[in-house]
Amino acid sequence: MESIEITVDLPIDRAEAVVRDALASQGFGILTEIDVAATFKAKLGVERPPLKILGACNPRLAYQAMELDPSVALVLPCNVVLAAGGEHTRVSIADPRTLMPGDAFASLADDAAQRLSAAAQVIDRAG
Amino acid sequence: MESIEITVDLPIDRAEAVVRDALASQGFGILTEIDVAATFKAKLGVERPPLKILGACNPRLAYQAMELDPSVALVLPCNVVLAAGGEHTRVSIADPRTLMPGDAFASLADDAAQRLSAAAQVIDRAG
Repeated sequence: MESIEITVDLPIDRAEAVVRDALASQGFGILTEIDVAATFKAKLGVERPPLKILGACNPRLAYQAMELDPSVALVLPCNVVLAAGGEHTRVSIADPRTLMPGDAFASLADDAAQRLSAAAQVIDRAG
Repeated sequence: MESIEITVDLPIDRAEAVVRDALASQGFGILTEIDVAATFKAKLGVERPPLKILGACNPRLAYQAMELDPSVALVLPCNVVLAAGGEHTRVSIADPRTLMPGDAFASLADDAAQRLSAAAQVIDRAG
């Protein structure tokens, strides 16, 4: 999976607020949230550094993609992963061009990728 | 995206209950849930037939995959899509072998795919 990668000098909770604001500025809301570390702790009893998966979605682009081919629902929303590393947080954003390959989706995937790249630049400047 | 496809003669709410039970029997919990039709209605004001995306995860397999390569978080959880069509519901399960390509994940992806195929058989028998 191709991804956009940013490391910010912020702890994960503050990084998450920055990420949510930056995505919102590009029309992406967060539809899902998984606290991966908490899930592994609860289900398996194992400890690992904080890691969250946010499911980001631009409703207009998602609607257009579903009109083209409803099976795109198998790859939505677009994952944004936050991984804690001390005072730093690694932010990884799945590349919509890899999520939605093929000529039919090219224009929508490019649009989404440009918006997510713009959000990544905002995140980078904040951290 | 390759997927496992089943059509059941049940309305979407009853199909969802069957799907959740079948996935649970194979060790998959539902970590996320998106009511796509409700989201499009709320955000864009457009109507479309009921469609839900459930995010299914087998914690043990997910943990092993993350130990191999944490970037697998970009494609987790595994989407299970329920699309209403009158009294029928189409159930589409993303194929873990497509989600997690590559030799490193082959054994885990095969294990997940076999479990999801077993769940699909249970769903098929119920509907």
